[in-house]
Amino acid sequence: MADRSLDALVVTSLPNILYLTNFNGSSGIVVITGSRLHFITDFRYVAAISGTRGTPHECPNLGLVTVESSYEVALATLLLTLPTGSAASSARVGFEAAHLSVARYRWLERALGTSEKAPQLVPVEGILERARVRKDAYELSVLREAARRLSAVTLAVFADVRAGRTEREVAMSIDWRIRDAGFERSAFDTIVAAGPDAALPHARPGDRKLSEGDLVVLDFGGVYDSYCVDLTRTVSIGPAGSRERAVYGAVLEAHDRAIQTVEPGRSRFDIDAVARNVLAGHGLAEAFGHGTGHGLGLEVHEDPRITRRRPDVDSGDEAVEPGMVFTIEPGAYLPEWGGVRIEDDVLVTASGVEVLTDVPTELIEI
Amino acid sequence: MADRSLDALVVTSLPNILYLTNFNGSSGIVVITGSRLHFITDFRYVAAISGTRGTPHECPNLGLVTVESSYEVALATLLLTLPTGSAASSARVGFEAAHLSVARYRWLERALGTSEKAPQLVPVEGILERARVRKDAYELSVLREAARRLSAVTLAVFADVRAGRTEREVAMSIDWRIRDAGFERSAFDTIVAAGPDAALPHARPGDRKLSEGDLVVLDFGGVYDSYCVDLTRTVSIGPAGSRERAVYGAVLEAHDRAIQTVEPGRSRFDIDAVARNVLAGHGLAEAFGHGTGHGLGLEVHEDPRITRRRPDVDSGDEAVEPGMVFTIEPGAYLPEWGGVRIEDDVLVTASGVEVLTDVPTELIEI
Repeated sequence: MADRSLDALVVTSLPNILYLTNFNGSSGIVVITGSRLHFITDFRYVAAISGTRGTPHECPNLGLVTVESSYEVALATLLLTLPTGSAASSARVGFEAAHLSVARYRWLERALGTSEKAPQLVPVEGILERARVRKDAYELSVLREAARRLSAVTLAVFADVRAGRTEREVAMSIDWRIRDAGFERSAFDTIVAAGPDAALPHARPGDRKLSEGDLVVLDFGGVYDSYCVDLTRTVSIGPAGSRERAVYGAVLEAHDRAIQTVEPGRSRFDIDAVARNVLAGHGLAEAFGHGTGHGLGLEVHEDPRITRRRPDVDSGDEAVEPGMVFTIEPGAYLPEWGGVRIEDDVLVTASGVEVLTDVPTELIEI
Repeated sequence: MADRSLDALVVTSLPNILYLTNFNGSSGIVVITGSRLHFITDFRYVAAISGTRGTPHECPNLGLVTVESSYEVALATLLLTLPTGSAASSARVGFEAAHLSVARYRWLERALGTSEKAPQLVPVEGILERARVRKDAYELSVLREAARRLSAVTLAVFADVRAGRTEREVAMSIDWRIRDAGFERSAFDTIVAAGPDAALPHARPGDRKLSEGDLVVLDFGGVYDSYCVDLTRTVSIGPAGSRERAVYGAVLEAHDRAIQTVEPGRSRFDIDAVARNVLAGHGLAEAFGHGTGHGLGLEVHEDPRITRRRPDVDSGDEAVEPGMVFTIEPGAYLPEWGGVRIEDDVLVTASGVEVLTDVPTELIEI
């Protein structure tokens, strides 16, 4: 905020609000000033916030504002009463340009007025996301525990997978096991994709019965103490055929080589390129259309994105740094035939990489 | 679009995209022109879209654009190649102001350039939401079936509620039953709030064990064929005390009277006022802080909102119309003591109201 000469910062992204305040409800706005954190929320959550007073979840020096008519009105009223940085000029109020809609922005601009003393809205991007991308010791302890629990879930899940069960039934078992392991919820819609269904990287579990010879992609995650972990294994129903073994082997090689590449200072694009080049070497360049990984934290998809460099968008090397946690999840998808994906969660350490998830990677034939 | 003289409309709200195209993935942009619907998506979903060709889920005359580098680049490129409405002027391109971030808007504005022929961006609001608010015959058949299934789930859930089980265990059973009944997923995080926990309208299920004398709020919903339904019942563990009976009776009276008020032409504010006045008559005005209901459809919270009129925001009477589907869910929340909420889903018919959910409303003592 000092770098941008901001007197206040309006935070509208819910994960950023959770990061700042421990509030995990569905609506709220934070306004940070030099002296305190103002939190605007509605009746439904006021008691929940008040209930954190005196607990370790309390957000210190929080000024609670209860919405009377609308969030917009409450926000504008608060901004108009903030002390400005210097008595001579209007307040500079930053807002999260990626997390404020044009409609809300236009409303706010009108409500703040155009007088010389009216607060001036300044678009900013990524201030809190940049803080969130390097996890602190507390966050790492949560993510390690979450990954440990998700790994245990995975071993149990292998017992749920068998010929004759539908994708949907297996997905229900997985979601049950995730909750039973202490997660708040699944981190996203669980994927169970068998045989040709696995050719769609984001397939939805359907009524297809798992049958002999299928490769089955199992991709699931959990939210533990607000933090997300994510894991994928591909298993074979019965003995795998030679093509299945070959594609699996190529994806596993891409997975292993990408993980070995992770260390502080390595470009996120280079990590992606390592996985991509391995697959290309096996004639599977076209079969791998998504990125190699994504950051994990309060969101299941956050920075850093381990992707191809996009010449017209990305500049710089964007090296990964100690404390970053992300997935490595190369895959190969062949229309009509099916797909393979293998995914683990890794932490960049001071000297290299720590794999947080711990589940065998060899092809399991069930 | 004709009313606003738009040559094209950029749709970025995912529920609106689902409404237009049957696409239910997590990222895509639609651009509607007078002659066709362009759909921008990435590798992960291209095969899924192609797979709908020739099925009843096919979106007719859809032009598929695959993202190469970023959604922004793909969108700007498409908009720059669209034919304009008249050869003499630049194209007028509407965008959903409530569903486009300031950051994306600013990027797009720069990418489209400032030449005389550059497409002109026009903020619009609620075009598709207004279409979605009145459900058609197909949507009503889905919502009726969804409500029938959720009602059956509720009767089964009563058997899961008993002293000694934790809120969390009951919530897991509910979520399992929702999936087992054919829903794609729960429509929101299931609420099981016992005793004093129920004083928070949006409580999260915790480790509290249900015990004799507790009122327990059970609030859950399901997504069926992409449409959301939502139901709440409050039950008593063992015989209810006199205060519990009194508060329950007041909330039930508010619920019944509000439903009886629903008919075409009735203001949404009036429906809310009926519930609110009943509770005020029982000395519970302060105990009911949220709205009486919310619309149901592709989103679990959509228009119409059955709420208090906010003098500085709302104008007009906003009458409800045949085909609208929404919840009626008054509640009373008393700090330290607990809470009661009773919720059903209703459809405005040509002549009055049809209650879609069908579960007894008298206080059940388990």
